[in-house]
Amino acid sequence: MKELNNLIEHVVARVSANLRDPGLDVSQYVRNQIPMDSHAMYYGFYALTHQHPLSFSFKHSSLAGTYFLGKTEVELSVVYKCDIRGDELKRKGTVVDMHGAKLRLFQDERISIRHSFLVKTLVHNNSHDPENVEIFKILNTIALQYSNIHGTPVEGCIIEPFATVDLSSCHNCIVGAFAYVQGGELSGRRIEPGHILIENPGVFSINYQHSPEVLEKYLTLDENHRPSGVFMDFCEARKHDFEPVYNAAQPEIPVEFPDTSFVSHYSLIRGDCAIGNNVMVCQRAYVENSRLGDGSNAQENCYIINSNYEGMNVTAHGGKVINADLGQGTFTGFNSFVYGREKARVTIGKDCVTMPHTIIDAEEPIGIPDGSLIWGYIRTQADVATNTVLLSEISKQTRFEQGGLVAEGDLAAFVEGFAHRIQHILEENGAYFDAGDPDRTAGHAQKTQDVGYNTVQAYMGGDLKGLCPTMRIEPLIP
Amino acid sequence: MKELNNLIEHVVARVSANLRDPGLDVSQYVRNQIPMDSHAMYYGFYALTHQHPLSFSFKHSSLAGTYFLGKTEVELSVVYKCDIRGDELKRKGTVVDMHGAKLRLFQDERISIRHSFLVKTLVHNNSHDPENVEIFKILNTIALQYSNIHGTPVEGCIIEPFATVDLSSCHNCIVGAFAYVQGGELSGRRIEPGHILIENPGVFSINYQHSPEVLEKYLTLDENHRPSGVFMDFCEARKHDFEPVYNAAQPEIPVEFPDTSFVSHYSLIRGDCAIGNNVMVCQRAYVENSRLGDGSNAQENCYIINSNYEGMNVTAHGGKVINADLGQGTFTGFNSFVYGREKARVTIGKDCVTMPHTIIDAEEPIGIPDGSLIWGYIRTQADVATNTVLLSEISKQTRFEQGGLVAEGDLAAFVEGFAHRIQHILEENGAYFDAGDPDRTAGHAQKTQDVGYNTVQAYMGGDLKGLCPTMRIEPLIP
Repeated sequence: MKELNNLIEHVVARVSANLRDPGLDVSQYVRNQIPMDSHAMYYGFYALTHQHPLSFSFKHSSLAGTYFLGKTEVELSVVYKCDIRGDELKRKGTVVDMHGAKLRLFQDERISIRHSFLVKTLVHNNSHDPENVEIFKILNTIALQYSNIHGTPVEGCIIEPFATVDLSSCHNCIVGAFAYVQGGELSGRRIEPGHILIENPGVFSINYQHSPEVLEKYLTLDENHRPSGVFMDFCEARKHDFEPVYNAAQPEIPVEFPDTSFVSHYSLIRGDCAIGNNVMVCQRAYVENSRLGDGSNAQENCYIINSNYEGMNVTAHGGKVINADLGQGTFTGFNSFVYGREKARVTIGKDCVTMPHTIIDAEEPIGIPDGSLIWGYIRTQADVATNTVLLSEISKQTRFEQGGLVAEGDLAAFVEGFAHRIQHILEENGAYFDAGDPDRTAGHAQKTQDVGYNTVQAYMGGDLKGLCPTMRIEPLIP
Repeated sequence: MKELNNLIEHVVARVSANLRDPGLDVSQYVRNQIPMDSHAMYYGFYALTHQHPLSFSFKHSSLAGTYFLGKTEVELSVVYKCDIRGDELKRKGTVVDMHGAKLRLFQDERISIRHSFLVKTLVHNNSHDPENVEIFKILNTIALQYSNIHGTPVEGCIIEPFATVDLSSCHNCIVGAFAYVQGGELSGRRIEPGHILIENPGVFSINYQHSPEVLEKYLTLDENHRPSGVFMDFCEARKHDFEPVYNAAQPEIPVEFPDTSFVSHYSLIRGDCAIGNNVMVCQRAYVENSRLGDGSNAQENCYIINSNYEGMNVTAHGGKVINADLGQGTFTGFNSFVYGREKARVTIGKDCVTMPHTIIDAEEPIGIPDGSLIWGYIRTQADVATNTVLLSEISKQTRFEQGGLVAEGDLAAFVEGFAHRIQHILEENGAYFDAGDPDRTAGHAQKTQDVGYNTVQAYMGGDLKGLCPTMRIEPLIP
């Protein structure tokens, strides 16, 4: 394990140098985060399809649990139980609009992970970084359990457990546990735990802060930065359920589903489930006794249990939807916890938006009207009055303050932006696909169907134990 | 599948050009040899240990079922259900004696497979080719079911089912079904089916020819070169037994064994088995209700069923030992078929040599004395008198003709050479290992223990279906 320990020290040194805070002991973030004894036993994998550009380069790294697709390079990094996709990497020649500047990609975009320690961390990609349109960069960064790096190049960052950085660029930031940031360019910021921040500088800003009591109950870190609370208990209680899936060379998918839908071999499907048309169920999604209506999708690390999705329902990475009924087009944000009970179901109408990092933990049956924006912490029907607003109402305003949410600026732009993004997600996932209609093109659900998986295992002994050899995978026909 | 078909045509053209026989339709050898529909589903794998030099290069090829270790390059080839090892590749700086010439390797030896179609074929390696000491070359060659290429560079050859080329160099040869050749340099030869030929030019020659009736029963090819008979029935009846092994990501090994022994995760162990010290059970070995005494080894594609090995017993690739008791140090050659029955067991004494491609198919209990050389076709105890001879007896002679065997020349050199080779195999496999004795060094059984496996799967759709991307795997520290 000598080289693996050296590698971890190397990453700690790089992150420390970036953060420029001599008083901060970065090593405490990575200590005890991976089981060193058994680490070499876990395997990672990369996917091949004939629809996605292909290029993998792995150097001096430890890869386990990881899923790669598209074009990815990893160097001097520990990437553990991550799900890194690459199905939205832009292709050479694409013209992107970066704040008004039209930039043409001179080569295919690729994901680059260097000098980083990513543990149980998802890295989806839809980059908006004008400085690196060809490279989605993750550099000198530590990201911890169930955090999400999404569309956000990061450099010199620590992303604490269950935190999300989304559609931003982050330099030298510490993003606290269960914080959510969507904020353009962030540099040298410290984001408090449980802070939800959506900024479009000069246009609008949205802020919500979970209370210390809520954080104490749902997600708290001890003095060694180890997380505990309801969220960890929920995930830990189910993590062994995936073992049979990862112990099979070609896992069976125990549900029937239409040809237009994709259910990953590495998802977990249990009990009585129904899958509609144009549905996407990603690897590490957990679906139990639930119905996913047409066009719905279950992203990585989400849990959908005893629930009913009418259709076109997006569950973002890490979203948890338990004992709930969701109307057509209703969205569940990153790491949201929509937790109904058998006798206290949560019913959300159609075309609603559950903000990222929202907690609905039902003490009684809860109903939320069509077209609502939902945030914060909801336990009773009475909380719905304070912690929701009609999207059509808030979009008329320039300042809105209610139930802890402070929203300022062009809120119509905020609402439209959110709606636009949900449409983008649905389109990318193939929710509208129709083989007979050239305008309703294939998305991830259709393009990923012929996927094959190659496993990557580390050296099992010697000084290099836990690290992988140097690997370079390129297309058969360049 | 377009490119896979193109690739097969390419190999056929290369082999045809080598064989220089315009009347021969080489394509009939490869037609229908692989299940084109399901071919892309199968995966190959390569092994990583910290004890073996590492380098893999796979280009424009289809790899399935294949096991690679060490240094291997594959280009423009179909390699299907092969077991190619690389644990006897020589290292840079080694001095080899090639017929008296001392040659120093200027780089690590590697296996090179190009323009070839290898189906269910084992390629072990212990090369004796003075022309290519750094490269074990398989070029423009077709090798069919259960054939063995062992220590034999081949160029422009067709190796028919259950044929073995051993410790030779073969150029532009057709080696018939169930033929065995060990013959130095072979060029432009046609080896008849069932011919066992061991030549050391100028020193000795050994010849045996199985009768047409025996071949008809045990292994015959139809007009499309498809094999049938007792051998195929035996193997086909057991091939599905391996499916659970290959369907698991980390197959369990259902037997206890000492730390000094190696049992491959990809072997099949069934029933009540006992494994002694310093034992090596390779991938695709099939061991059922048997005891493998100290220092024994079960090579790829062998079957050991209801049998007892006293110790130091080598079962060469494809050897089948059923209802048999083998004394200490007794050797079973390539593709030999030692088939006792419950009430007609085969008992072979100690220090015997069952020649490659021998058939013992017991109609009654058969006993063979210590120190025997065994060949040909044996069905009764009476046959033992004609088809065995004491090694100590034959080694005194310069011409020996009995039971179809014609042996001429320095037969002491033949017997000593065989004994020397068996010792080499035992040493290489670690049969004599003793951690406390520096002269009893580790072999394959000990050096392969920390093995990890990476899988290689082909594209699952599109024109490239069934072919693998370009892959290059190199050591983490060069």
